[in-house]
Amino acid sequence: MTRQEIVPERLAGATVVVLDVFMATTTLLAILENGARGVYPAESLEEVDEIRSRLGPENVLRGGEQDAERIDGYDHGPFPEEYAPEIVAGKDVVFVTTNGTRALADAAGADRVLLGCLRNAPAVARELEESGTDSVYLVCAGSAGRFTLEDFLGAATIFSHMNAPDWRLNDAAWLATDFMQGHDGNVQEALKRCRAGRWFVENDRMDAFRFVADVGASGLVPEVVGGRAVV
Amino acid sequence: MTRQEIVPERLAGATVVVLDVFMATTTLLAILENGARGVYPAESLEEVDEIRSRLGPENVLRGGEQDAERIDGYDHGPFPEEYAPEIVAGKDVVFVTTNGTRALADAAGADRVLLGCLRNAPAVARELEESGTDSVYLVCAGSAGRFTLEDFLGAATIFSHMNAPDWRLNDAAWLATDFMQGHDGNVQEALKRCRAGRWFVENDRMDAFRFVADVGASGLVPEVVGGRAVV
Repeated sequence: MTRQEIVPERLAGATVVVLDVFMATTTLLAILENGARGVYPAESLEEVDEIRSRLGPENVLRGGEQDAERIDGYDHGPFPEEYAPEIVAGKDVVFVTTNGTRALADAAGADRVLLGCLRNAPAVARELEESGTDSVYLVCAGSAGRFTLEDFLGAATIFSHMNAPDWRLNDAAWLATDFMQGHDGNVQEALKRCRAGRWFVENDRMDAFRFVADVGASGLVPEVVGGRAVV
Repeated sequence: MTRQEIVPERLAGATVVVLDVFMATTTLLAILENGARGVYPAESLEEVDEIRSRLGPENVLRGGEQDAERIDGYDHGPFPEEYAPEIVAGKDVVFVTTNGTRALADAAGADRVLLGCLRNAPAVARELEESGTDSVYLVCAGSAGRFTLEDFLGAATIFSHMNAPDWRLNDAAWLATDFMQGHDGNVQEALKRCRAGRWFVENDRMDAFRFVADVGASGLVPEVVGGRAVV
């Protein structure tokens, strides 16, 4: 339900999917789809500096947010549309956010760490099934330690695309399954009701909302390997 | 979703209902119903000792659990049936658990702290409405920082008994409302599916399960005032 529920010692041998639907994992997926050379999720501003120094700053874009605010001196913010192909092509992007990229850091002890969102939810489900893993945590990043519906909807969508009748579910996974059965797998209306979704609707950002909500639009499943998100 | 979501500085002026359906708040309610003289939820074993010394140990029962284990030297464990009227009448009971009584301590900065469970859920809803409060947190204790369905079901049941069409809901409250609409307000089947509920079913503890699940069986709404639970 939140990244704070992660118990690091349980992650050995498991596959973790981190979801921060509004917006970190959605944007990271877009940056990769749009042809960035390297994509580096960072836990903190300090880690951004460290990665940028290591890569050499000339071809590095810095992006993200802290407490929903843009970061002084950074090239871009947290939104997918800021990372068009002509902007990211041939560049490295170092990306830091308040919840999503920290959740990725929290999950680092897992065997595999994947990036999930609504856009690639069916592809993530396929990847989990084909990998043969028998231990999966769908980690909702949440917001500052609190539950956010959009990440739950992302996790529920992934799980609804898996054929997992015999899996042992924790209570949150059971609730996600129940939710999807009750809504025939449709998360669009719920996404408009959640706090973040209402912000997009009320601020006339329907293009961005529809981009986030486009279940199955992407077939890519980014994985974080050695601090770098790759597909 | 968990007591870890509590932000102490937001509690001023608010009413908090703490739910630990299996078992702390259910058992605390039973102890009060069964006629204990004073009931003292404690945050830690040290606080139990401190309260017991203050009250004078001769008429004090100690009860509860730590990490689901009984506590050495304590009179009783975490279950309601251990606190029958003939046992608690005229006694003070100091009670400590891993999640529920700690959640009560976390909530201490609120204007009012109430004890909720399935048995008194409709009564809690009435109390919230009649009190005129305009800020309510239904705090699910959870288990060691993780989501538990039974506390969510308790909160959802309380909320479903309130006439709150204009309330501004956080995402968790929205999900609870949606759940109750999808299940016509019936939480019994879901309670059997959750991890703690399965334990009671599989260990032939159906009497205890039915006691916990008896929505509306009690009209009492305990409140913690000065460290003591009163009705």
